[in-house]
This record gives sequence, structure tokens and C-alpha cells, in this order.
Amino acid sequence: MTELYLEDLNVGDRFGSSTVHVTERMIVEFASAFDPQPFHLDLDAAQHSVFKGLVASGWHTAAISMNLFVTGDFKLAGGSVGLGVDELRWPRPVKPGDTLQLQTEITEVRRSKSKPDRGVIRIRNVTTNQNDEVVQTFLASVLVRCRGFPE
Amino acid sequence: MTELYLEDLNVGDRFGSSTVHVTERMIVEFASAFDPQPFHLDLDAAQHSVFKGLVASGWHTAAISMNLFVTGDFKLAGGSVGLGVDELRWPRPVKPGDTLQLQTEITEVRRSKSKPDRGVIRIRNVTTNQNDEVVQTFLASVLVRCRGFPE
Repeated sequence: MTELYLEDLNVGDRFGSSTVHVTERMIVEFASAFDPQPFHLDLDAAQHSVFKGLVASGWHTAAISMNLFVTGDFKLAGGSVGLGVDELRWPRPVKPGDTLQLQTEITEVRRSKSKPDRGVIRIRNVTTNQNDEVVQTFLASVLVRCRGFPE
Repeated sequence: MTELYLEDLNVGDRFGSSTVHVTERMIVEFASAFDPQPFHLDLDAAQHSVFKGLVASGWHTAAISMNLFVTGDFKLAGGSVGLGVDELRWPRPVKPGDTLQLQTEITEVRRSKSKPDRGVIRIRNVTTNQNDEVVQTFLASVLVRCRGFPE
């Protein structure tokens, strides 16, 4: 896969990803380390929660989505360095057995005026499950190199 | 620790957390699973990256911060259910050896008009390192129960 520079990117470009199958073990393991709440840890307790069943931490969904992003079709030269994330939403929880996939769309491409060997793009990342239901959306600003960036 | 309801919360209230010491092993382990880029995985490769050294994935910083939040002083009745996150920023990367701590401040308290047994609060979460340097900030909307919420 060719590495992409700012000159290669256009508003409206879309990139896909592979898929990740999410298991109960993965949900519980992540939650034990980072979000130890009953509805992420225990099937019985989760039944009595607002979710009525075990669900992944939203931060787990975000981490899985980052993995789909980094291993997907969108390969930036020098790697993907996120400057910030806006409007991170989880319209539907991720459950054991879900299979997640990511779609990335470029919404803005801007070369830096002060440092013309680089720029910033704005992307919209949408994570869906096996029923094409949206489980996460966000906008991100990402640092991008121009061709001729000093290695 | 008493569990908190909407009636207990006021704009300006602040809550602290314990601390987490971040090791190189933790950074590499998280990155291997969720953000496999050279500057999160390999000391030598990271030296030649934009970061000039190994740094944690921003999503790792977010996950650690969630752990500090859930295990900290701010205990909501029914748990912490995030509705969305805005303005997630990483002004400074997290490095091996850093010790992170979280401070949470309530910026808005609003009872639901349609469902008066619950409400939504807005919080600002700031994660700092051992030098009181800010490594992450975000705003979040969180679901909160009122007293008398049906169990």
C-alpha cells in the first residue's frame, strides 16, 4: 500500500477497513483494565443496568476503531498523528458477538501557511456493526506530511 | 463512598482521582492491540518519529483517564454512562515513567424535562502528569439519576 501525502488527498475521499469480531472476553478484559463498571464486566449485573445486557466501554469501541483505522486502507506517510477529536458519540452500544468495521471520509484538506511542508486534514470516522448500525462517530484533525517532508 | 444523584451535584464541584504510573510495557501492550504505529511500539523507531521518543497512543491516555475517573471520587448512582465527548485534545504526549492523575469539574447540571427522574451533566476532565503538565482534556455529557429513580 502506497503511503499518502497531503497532495494525494481530496475532500470526499473515502477509505475502508478490515473487520474486528468483538467477544465477551475482549469486552471484560478491556473493562477490567480501563472501565471497571458492572455493565462492562458481568453478564448478570449488566442485565439490571440501563443497557439490559453486557456492553463494551465506549473507550473500547474507540480503541477498536483506532485499530481498524491504523490497519485499514488509509496509510499516511509518517503515520497517523491525531491532533484532536470532536463530537465523539456512541449512538448504540457494542455487544458481544458484534463485528465492527470503519469508514473514513476526508472532510477538509488544509496546507499549513507557516510550515508549508505539512498540513492538517479533517476526517469523519464512522464505526458500524454487522447490521450496518452506527456504533460510533467522530471528527478528527490529523497531521499530514507534504511530499518532500524532511525524513 | 456515597453514590451521587443529580440533586447532589453543582456547577463548579471538583473531584480528584488516584494516580496511574505508566510503563513502557503498558504503552507497547496497548499499542500492539489498538494502535500499532512505530512511535507507540518501538524505542528506536520512535526516536526517528515526530515525537523523538516512545509515546502512548492518545486512545491509551483516554482509557487510563477513564480508569482514573471510574475508580476516583466521583461515584454516580447507577454508574457513569457517557453520552458523548467533545473537544478531546492531547496537548502533550504521555511517555514511559509518567504518572497520571485526573481532575473532574462539573460545568453544567440539567434535569430532563421529558423524564424528570434523570438528567444530564456536563463535565470537564483534565489529565495531568507528575509535572502538572496537561496531557489530555475533554468535555463529556454524562447521564445522571435523580433520587427516586426506579432501581
